[in-house]
Amino acid sequence: MPGVATILMEGTFQTSPYAPGSLITVASLSVAETSSILSTTAKLAAMPAAEKATLLAGRRIALLFYESSTRTRTSFELAAKSLGATTTLVSDKSSSIEKGESLKDTGLTLRALGAECIILRHNAGGAPFVLARTTGLPVLNAGDGMHQHPSQALLDLRTILTRLGLDATRVDETSLKGVTVTITGDIRHSRVARSNAMLLPRLGAKVLLCGPPELLPEEALTLGEGVEIVRDFDTALRRSQVAMMLRIQRERLAGLELDLTEYTTNYQLNEDRLARCAPKALVMHPGPMIRGLEIQGEVADGPNSAIEDQVGHGLAVRAALLVRALGVEL
Amino acid sequence: MPGVATILMEGTFQTSPYAPGSLITVASLSVAETSSILSTTAKLAAMPAAEKATLLAGRRIALLFYESSTRTRTSFELAAKSLGATTTLVSDKSSSIEKGESLKDTGLTLRALGAECIILRHNAGGAPFVLARTTGLPVLNAGDGMHQHPSQALLDLRTILTRLGLDATRVDETSLKGVTVTITGDIRHSRVARSNAMLLPRLGAKVLLCGPPELLPEEALTLGEGVEIVRDFDTALRRSQVAMMLRIQRERLAGLELDLTEYTTNYQLNEDRLARCAPKALVMHPGPMIRGLEIQGEVADGPNSAIEDQVGHGLAVRAALLVRALGVEL
Amino acid sequence: MPGVATILMEGTFQTSPYAPGSLITVASLSVAETSSILSTTAKLAAMPAAEKATLLAGRRIALLFYESSTRTRTSFELAAKSLGATTTLVSDKSSSIEKGESLKDTGLTLRALGAECIILRHNAGGAPFVLARTTGLPVLNAGDGMHQHPSQALLDLRTILTRLGLDATRVDETSLKGVTVTITGDIRHSRVARSNAMLLPRLGAKVLLCGPPELLPEEALTLGEGVEIVRDFDTALRRSQVAMMLRIQRERLAGLELDLTEYTTNYQLNEDRLARCAPKALVMHPGPMIRGLEIQGEVADGPNSAIEDQVGHGLAVRAALLVRALGVEL
Repeated sequence: MPGVATILMEGTFQTSPYAPGSLITVASLSVAETSSILSTTAKLAAMPAAEKATLLAGRRIALLFYESSTRTRTSFELAAKSLGATTTLVSDKSSSIEKGESLKDTGLTLRALGAECIILRHNAGGAPFVLARTTGLPVLNAGDGMHQHPSQALLDLRTILTRLGLDATRVDETSLKGVTVTITGDIRHSRVARSNAMLLPRLGAKVLLCGPPELLPEEALTLGEGVEIVRDFDTALRRSQVAMMLRIQRERLAGLELDLTEYTTNYQLNEDRLARCAPKALVMHPGPMIRGLEIQGEVADGPNSAIEDQVGHGLAVRAALLVRALGVEL
Repeated sequence: MPGVATILMEGTFQTSPYAPGSLITVASLSVAETSSILSTTAKLAAMPAAEKATLLAGRRIALLFYESSTRTRTSFELAAKSLGATTTLVSDKSSSIEKGESLKDTGLTLRALGAECIILRHNAGGAPFVLARTTGLPVLNAGDGMHQHPSQALLDLRTILTRLGLDATRVDETSLKGVTVTITGDIRHSRVARSNAMLLPRLGAKVLLCGPPELLPEEALTLGEGVEIVRDFDTALRRSQVAMMLRIQRERLAGLELDLTEYTTNYQLNEDRLARCAPKALVMHPGPMIRGLEIQGEVADGPNSAIEDQVGHGLAVRAALLVRALGVEL
Repeated sequence: MPGVATILMEGTFQTSPYAPGSLITVASLSVAETSSILSTTAKLAAMPAAEKATLLAGRRIALLFYESSTRTRTSFELAAKSLGATTTLVSDKSSSIEKGESLKDTGLTLRALGAECIILRHNAGGAPFVLARTTGLPVLNAGDGMHQHPSQALLDLRTILTRLGLDATRVDETSLKGVTVTITGDIRHSRVARSNAMLLPRLGAKVLLCGPPELLPEEALTLGEGVEIVRDFDTALRRSQVAMMLRIQRERLAGLELDLTEYTTNYQLNEDRLARCAPKALVMHPGPMIRGLEIQGEVADGPNSAIEDQVGHGLAVRAALLVRALGVEL
């Protein structure tokens, strides 16, 4: 088995050998599949709780978390429980992961224990490919290094469609036509930015990336067709219907010379800037956010904010991903 | 949003803006409410398990623990499960808490994930007020810093009533008339002592606080009407029907000059002292206890001990608090 | 209460005072009991999932883990859930264990919380005896120090019987007649080796222990009647139907002078050695394994490997142990 690093170097991000129902990267998610997931999400959201609770009764889902997480882990876990599934959590704090067991063997063990789907968060980009390939199980990527966070992109999509009054039960290549989304902050280290910048343009959106060169290198343009870099935040906001803010990940800034005061002056989304440049824009943040740094508390709590909506849609979208992973037809 | 520290300094411990069903401090718990909780506890304790398991079926309860805990966390969790609720645990070891997300945002996330009640343990006194105010959800305080531990006081109350042969299904201002409770040990740092010293006198009990000045400052008298400081342990015991021992929290003694040998000589509850001073007294300890320090193992395991009863009543009382928090009528 | 260390020094590994249904050491497990557990396992394995899910409905099982674990903890937890039981996990990372509470008091607390059985993993050999004696509850030993891991021996037994085409529904003193099992590696520190070397010979198997003197002292011969030390791995393999490999526990090698390159040369199970010496032998490993050290990845994944079978049988055997512990008749 080649290691994660090897796989990354080879650049072999193929999806064909993986079990149907896997969701590892937005790169391999077609518009039709995206539409189908949204449709399932809408059906589940409309279904009575008691009926939902039978869909995955007796099915086993493993959560394998090599990085700490609140919202993603809890969201997948509660989604699974709402469908009646049995869940088990393996995290790096209390497991063989500490003893140096390989990801492959941990995956094979979970499969032998009856897991029918593994939800993986891992600090190494590409790890979900390894897990899916070696176990043959459907794998849902809950965030891998700086690579991808596909369920986040899908929940962001559902949030945008719903809050802009668009049809959230299906999408095609024109669904987001005329919608401009600015993603601001630490694009360099953000799997959320990568997944969104890949997904949204395929549905017709324009994506503007905004931030200083240390956090937003020119190579980011290669993420997709409809992607553009705009360094001035006010300019970007004036063109946008959606402002997606990213957390400044202090733990990832080591070695970078970033003046946080200057960053806040130039890139914080605050009430004044929002009123001046985009008074109607939807404000989003994947969390956890640092109030007073990349976003002002008043904006996070204000009428433009869709931040709590995102969490709620996360629960709904992840239930749909689980139903899809386990091959249940609605 | 003001921080926890600000709130503490302002002294704004008001209860009015919090969701009904919250239990944050004994300070705002009336005798009538206390009686109602005991009544619900008694009804639940008499209810067949299968019937109990339907009361909160499909309801979601979040446990948010910023400090480690065995008995309180497990007790609330098992109480919730016995009522059929779905629980999710977020602890500081594997969550966004580590990433510096504010308590407010963690709470809003849990609410958006469908939590209808949050059980919070936090190392900062006052934190449950912040959580209740910002989420609007019923919050059950499972211990906040050195401030309060109200469910502990209620389970201690039920234990005392039951073991003294009093009516445990209701209370009024005279229910504990003639009952003297000595609380001995590290009163200064103990939220258990604070909650008990507030609650018991309102029901007619006399509370004696006992310990050396380092652990029991004179200001403790302000905790309530029926509270008295008695420095000599033997004297206090001779007047008591109940001896409540507190753990010496080594981790909180930094900077204090406390001679543990001297402490043990003066304040340990051992067989000899119990036989001499209060041979019939009920012995209680909120746990975790350190045998051989504040209490002798033989006493903890002896016939006077109600320590295991306390744990059992904890389960029952917490089930009642959950039923109350979620607005279910029995 | 005597401490764990005292008990070990006294050598008082008696089983009589423990609750029926406890499984602490293979030393006290008769052939008849072993047979009965296998029979229960077979019945459960053949039972429809929906029927199984009623067997322990409403029953409470506590998992008390003082050491990290993936497969054993998850296996017991999923087994309990598959039987409909409610589980609660207490681990050393987030509990009073950190605060220095004694094992006895943690056990008494779990009992008072309604636990009917405790599954214990502890870093001190003998700890399950203390827990069983002080709580009176059935205790299942999920691994205690370098002492015992009885459920592992039972799942290994079921794996061997099944893969060798023998009757896995019952055993007697001759069931494994003609079967030689080589256990190779760090016998000195391995509770898995101890439990297997005790159990298998009683059923007629021959057990060969293999490894360098640092990891396999001569005293290992005292483990049982049918046990023999064979220092040369090839020689041992040539006599064997089963090759059980043990993890090299780097964290336990401190102070030992062990050359890992030399170890790998002499004791690694690789394709070449397997083909030369025991082309039909069953390959087993309790996990977590370190591929490339004690076992070659190709062998772990090859047709001789029963490593995933072991995990699956672990789930089945542990369900049987839980049913037995709670006194349910099938």
